Amino acid sequence: MKKLINDPFQVVDETLSGILKAYPNHLRASKESPRALVRADAPIKGKVAICTGGGSGHIPVFLGYVGPGLLDGVSVGNVFSSPGAADMLAATKEVNGGKGVLYLFGNYQGDTMNFEMAAEMAEMEKIPVQMCIAKDDVASAPRSEKDKRRGVAGIFFAYKIAGAKADTGASLEEVKKTTDAVIDNTCTLGVALTPCTIPAAGKPTFTIAEDEMEIGMGIHGEPGIERTKLKTADEVATIMTEKIVKDLPFKANDEVAVLVNGLGATPPEELYILYNKAYDILKGYRIKVYRAFIGEYATSMEMAGASITLLRLNDEFKKLLDAPAFSPFLLQWRKA
Amino acid sequence: MKKLINDPFQVVDETLSGILKAYPNHLRASKESPRALVRADAPIKGKVAICTGGGSGHIPVFLGYVGPGLLDGVSVGNVFSSPGAADMLAATKEVNGGKGVLYLFGNYQGDTMNFEMAAEMAEMEKIPVQMCIAKDDVASAPRSEKDKRRGVAGIFFAYKIAGAKADTGASLEEVKKTTDAVIDNTCTLGVALTPCTIPAAGKPTFTIAEDEMEIGMGIHGEPGIERTKLKTADEVATIMTEKIVKDLPFKANDEVAVLVNGLGATPPEELYILYNKAYDILKGYRIKVYRAFIGEYATSMEMAGASITLLRLNDEFKKLLDAPAFSPFLLQWRKA
Repeated sequence: MKKLINDPFQVVDETLSGILKAYPNHLRASKESPRALVRADAPIKGKVAICTGGGSGHIPVFLGYVGPGLLDGVSVGNVFSSPGAADMLAATKEVNGGKGVLYLFGNYQGDTMNFEMAAEMAEMEKIPVQMCIAKDDVASAPRSEKDKRRGVAGIFFAYKIAGAKADTGASLEEVKKTTDAVIDNTCTLGVALTPCTIPAAGKPTFTIAEDEMEIGMGIHGEPGIERTKLKTADEVATIMTEKIVKDLPFKANDEVAVLVNGLGATPPEELYILYNKAYDILKGYRIKVYRAFIGEYATSMEMAGASITLLRLNDEFKKLLDAPAFSPFLLQWRKA
Repeated sequence: MKKLINDPFQVVDETLSGILKAYPNHLRASKESPRALVRADAPIKGKVAICTGGGSGHIPVFLGYVGPGLLDGVSVGNVFSSPGAADMLAATKEVNGGKGVLYLFGNYQGDTMNFEMAAEMAEMEKIPVQMCIAKDDVASAPRSEKDKRRGVAGIFFAYKIAGAKADTGASLEEVKKTTDAVIDNTCTLGVALTPCTIPAAGKPTFTIAEDEMEIGMGIHGEPGIERTKLKTADEVATIMTEKIVKDLPFKANDEVAVLVNGLGATPPEELYILYNKAYDILKGYRIKVYRAFIGEYATSMEMAGASITLLRLNDEFKKLLDAPAFSPFLLQWRKA
């Protein structure tokens, strides 16, 4: 395990300490829990607040998406492990600006259980809560059982659009409705080339041969749909894009936003090579790329691999996608 | 070599093809060379233009720094190999807005030779050119021989401030003067934990044991100042920060911008752990952090490792550092 860390059991707390020192005007810890961070200017009066949360090891997911035009609060678990309901509640109480709180998180059992518990506790405090659960990973279950799908990098689009929708002054129900619509139109497929190591475990999450890759593997190393010999970038982009297009399905004249996400150790150069082919395939289907995002938007520490996400756009999504937003962890939100 | 590529000899051209498809409103290829990219809206009349260039494999260095508030053009070499003078000239001719062109690049023999040749050719075309050569790597030569130092991640600060200075309407000589002052006040030190592989070479640039790290290694795998057993993040941050502080030297009451840069495979979590300690050390010296940048600003493909850079600020640098800028490859330029 070759990591620049101190105590493997202090990785999350030391990371948070570094983040709060780096961005003191942007983020602060909540009063009740060091594992709940909120916007430095929270609560924003008269705006629906949005909270997320989940296990650590995925920066900029989750805490990197807190900021103006994005989310208001986040609860932070140990590496690959759900935060507690009390942490979620701590964030909830400090971000509520009087219009209620949307919980927006990925579809994992521990997170869902704890967010449901936090929602019950919030309601006892008279804070209205709604939940949106991202489930964009097409490899994790067939479309007919889409509620079993995992949430992966595509949650990025849900964050961005939910945050912009809340900024319009929309009600909690309206923000939930738009966010659910984003989730329903988002499909992701990933490939993994190498594992990563949870610091406290000290050994890789799985083993894979030097000439192999796994298609559809989850961001915590959950089994994918096929382990094969390492393919070329064009072959990988083709497999991913074709499977995603057929899943929703995306059709001629659809406009889409594309995310090519690096899992951690994959160089940006390789992400652009994947996009180079994915773009051509979409063009062949007469699917129009409205905007492309390429970089590390949801990582798995030092895992090598990448995912492709498509979001089918409508006029509302386009407007909200292009609205201003800011986080020091993130690419700028000005249209390229 | 586990890479998501097609032909190892086509990596750069396919990367550029993907980039131009991803950001068509932001970048375009020059008419005379596919290896010279310029701002889509170049030339900007009445503004000093800034060109950079160098070998590939370092995204966002170099082409990620082209954009409003930043640079105007870039020439793109093969992986870890200088672009040609003709490519540099192609960019120069298309970005010149009538006030001349500044060449700003890292201190490597091939790049320097080719930029000098391009400058001569540009002058034959009646385009005034000045050069600024970044040399921030304190490990590569003692301060008494600082013109021998390599340019590494600290060029980021020179790019940002040069771009903002040019936007003020300053003359070529004024932009050069400010940029040289930034370079003189920038110090970087890096550590490498793993090598990377040049695709066309097919084997790692160096070998290093599973329990070793190298302090001061260059971003192409150039030898550092010490190979040691892997240390803790706090030890590494201490070695880097102390050596940098003593080099300039930075002093009590100095205000600095800090960059903690990931070389590629190092997770963001580890960069924040390094910053967590670096911040405390600076505080101990009563050096004040004005602004921190943490992420991948200059990479070496899949190399694991990190560097710390300090820039000593003055009032002009602070204002220019905070000025608006944009690139889809980059962190947003709004103050955190």
